[in-house]
Amino acid sequence: MASSSSSHIDLSGPTFVVLTGASQGIGRAISIELSKVLGPKSLMLLLARSKDELAKTADQCKQDNVTTVYESMDLSKASAKDMFDVISRALKGRKVTDFATAMIFHNVGSLGNLAVPTERMEDVDEMRQYYDLNVFNVIKLNTQFLKVFKEVEERIVIVNITSLCAIKAMSGMASYCTGKAAREMYFKVLAEEKKHIKVLNYSPGPVETSMIDYVLAETVNTNLRDVFLSFKMQGTLLKPEVTAKKCLTVLQQGKFGPGDHVDYFDSE
Amino acid sequence: MASSSSSHIDLSGPTFVVLTGASQGIGRAISIELSKVLGPKSLMLLLARSKDELAKTADQCKQDNVTTVYESMDLSKASAKDMFDVISRALKGRKVTDFATAMIFHNVGSLGNLAVPTERMEDVDEMRQYYDLNVFNVIKLNTQFLKVFKEVEERIVIVNITSLCAIKAMSGMASYCTGKAAREMYFKVLAEEKKHIKVLNYSPGPVETSMIDYVLAETVNTNLRDVFLSFKMQGTLLKPEVTAKKCLTVLQQGKFGPGDHVDYFDSE
Repeated sequence: MASSSSSHIDLSGPTFVVLTGASQGIGRAISIELSKVLGPKSLMLLLARSKDELAKTADQCKQDNVTTVYESMDLSKASAKDMFDVISRALKGRKVTDFATAMIFHNVGSLGNLAVPTERMEDVDEMRQYYDLNVFNVIKLNTQFLKVFKEVEERIVIVNITSLCAIKAMSGMASYCTGKAAREMYFKVLAEEKKHIKVLNYSPGPVETSMIDYVLAETVNTNLRDVFLSFKMQGTLLKPEVTAKKCLTVLQQGKFGPGDHVDYFDSE
Repeated sequence: MASSSSSHIDLSGPTFVVLTGASQGIGRAISIELSKVLGPKSLMLLLARSKDELAKTADQCKQDNVTTVYESMDLSKASAKDMFDVISRALKGRKVTDFATAMIFHNVGSLGNLAVPTERMEDVDEMRQYYDLNVFNVIKLNTQFLKVFKEVEERIVIVNITSLCAIKAMSGMASYCTGKAAREMYFKVLAEEKKHIKVLNYSPGPVETSMIDYVLAETVNTNLRDVFLSFKMQGTLLKPEVTAKKCLTVLQQGKFGPGDHVDYFDSE
């Protein structure tokens, strides 16, 4: 899906990074891999609910070039001001112009209630809650990031962690598929409007995270259960660090057009 | 996009139809065109907020074969029970097995607040309201329809009025694009799970409706304004009845796979 436009993203300078869902799985892996490649005087802000797990991620991000901070934040409920403030605080008095690159990784996500069959979905409150975390507050946080770095908009890089489910229907995953479709589309529209901002929709492939066991425990859809069981049995699940490295390679090579959906399995 | 699977949808028998957003534009046009082709003892239920405009639509649907009823309903707020009941009432004591085909057209839709630039979207309440009407309650209504016709699931035909914006980002239309993407994806997941139910995502093309003037009056995006102005100036907008007829042709020819996105401009 990568289009022909190309511009390398240089992470060797001072880089500011926000990562959501950094307490586990893919978010943790991207944080760790990033910390290894960022240039001197870089800053990383890790966000998630669990402070304890964020601390563990931060501990694995200790590098001479990088200062890592983290804050516990429930991204389904935080106000726009809370979000703006947490990003501003992380700058630690430095100016936005001090950074060669300003990145945000929207990795936070959930699977929704897998116990309700698609054809019986009718709980609007539940849908709202799902979208609050997975779509609406992702947009709200992204807007705060854009506001903080407004002065240096051309230095912004946005990575949305998406899924094959954003573009391909999967049985038993209506909330996840629709939420990912909406979220990816928001970033595509933004990219269409702001061509000087680099926007990537990265689809990490099937990764060995707690989501897999959650699906197996919760789903009422036998087809979905079979698909995930076969992932597990055949050992085809990717390690988080493998797809995290690929994501950084895609960014550094810059072989994606505005808002492109790039999958782990796409050829380079 | 039409896939190879094909099965004609026969509307010449007694057919039950629910149409939302039937008070104007494409919804009205589909209602009128449908009333001309439905077989004897058919029933149509028209839904929208404006009773007066629904009455006008119903007046244009007077055909010997068809009884048309309408009810004022705010589909952004109606409860699941209200929705179930309005469909049940429309059966007028007849059994669901009396109908050869049971169709629902999800045409209701809005454009959202076009005065907020994409990069400044942050009002979660506004996003919720948009999704309530355009996504969440569409799903809820569809579930009620599936419940009412549960006994004859294989006779169900579902048409979601979608848009090119569901699959292609358009500047200045973040709410519309994301909502259409999510909504279309729900129907694709449902179709993936329920292959015996016919599900079509029909994209009507740029149609001469009040939406066009709304965009021109409200948008803060100059690119979007230019696109819509050129539609208007060049006379390329479709008449509602033209795209309504095409939608029925697609259905009757049945040349679409489960959940396929079929556009007015796709070749037959």
